[in-house]
Amino acid sequence: MTGDACVACAGGWPRADHRIADLGPAVAYLNEDQFFPGWAILVLKRHATELYHLDPAERSRLIDAVSTLARGLAEAFKAVKMNYELLGNQVPHIHWHIVPRLSDDPAPRLPAWMVEHAPQSLAAVELEARLQRIRDHLAS
Amino acid sequence: MTGDACVACAGGWPRADHRIADLGPAVAYLNEDQFFPGWAILVLKRHATELYHLDPAERSRLIDAVSTLARGLAEAFKAVKMNYELLGNQVPHIHWHIVPRLSDDPAPRLPAWMVEHAPQSLAAVELEARLQRIRDHLAS
Repeated sequence: MTGDACVACAGGWPRADHRIADLGPAVAYLNEDQFFPGWAILVLKRHATELYHLDPAERSRLIDAVSTLARGLAEAFKAVKMNYELLGNQVPHIHWHIVPRLSDDPAPRLPAWMVEHAPQSLAAVELEARLQRIRDHLAS
Repeated sequence: MTGDACVACAGGWPRADHRIADLGPAVAYLNEDQFFPGWAILVLKRHATELYHLDPAERSRLIDAVSTLARGLAEAFKAVKMNYELLGNQVPHIHWHIVPRLSDDPAPRLPAWMVEHAPQSLAAVELEARLQRIRDHLAS
């Protein structure tokens, strides 16, 4: 897949109304499914598919952005542990799933993917409040 | 959990006979379950639990080691896509699951965790051959 055929490059995903913040080499979005509160997605601004396709300086800036977002999410949601995942099985464009695992997690020893659940979308007012809560912690 | 109580710090996990190579800030091991051929684990040498607990220079060296291992695995197993996961839900000591996803993957669109399967351990001769195959690609 080239950038031309990429849904992330075309702006079709993630949803623009879930945008959290610009973090330098990448942009942070809230995941639509908020069953795990604070699950966020960090999307590289340019098209690339593997970490080893980046030069060391870009890779370093990207992992710093991952770290910044994870810290903000951990603080905003009082996470017990953070999960960081770069998969790309469906959308190969480099993006990270950053998942706070909280004290009331239904399956704290398992990857989030293994926890069956009904997806939980947020209403507009809740969505905006959650986005702002994360932005406040990124800025502090 | 402190380093004192940590199974990774105590040398109890991963198995020493699955060690692939020293990659600077971290050591690479082959995952015992080889249902996904080449699934490897990269363990930080010192005890830390979140990316934002590392200083930027250490974080940069770590993600370079992740990238080096991923490239070696991708070449050794002709991966279609690599998956990179730092979870720590069971062992919070920073370690990465680096999973080659191959052309004959049984569920190429899903995280590896969602693919039910019987664990596949390697016999000693196969294990040593696989470790050496990866080492050869890391060195090239």
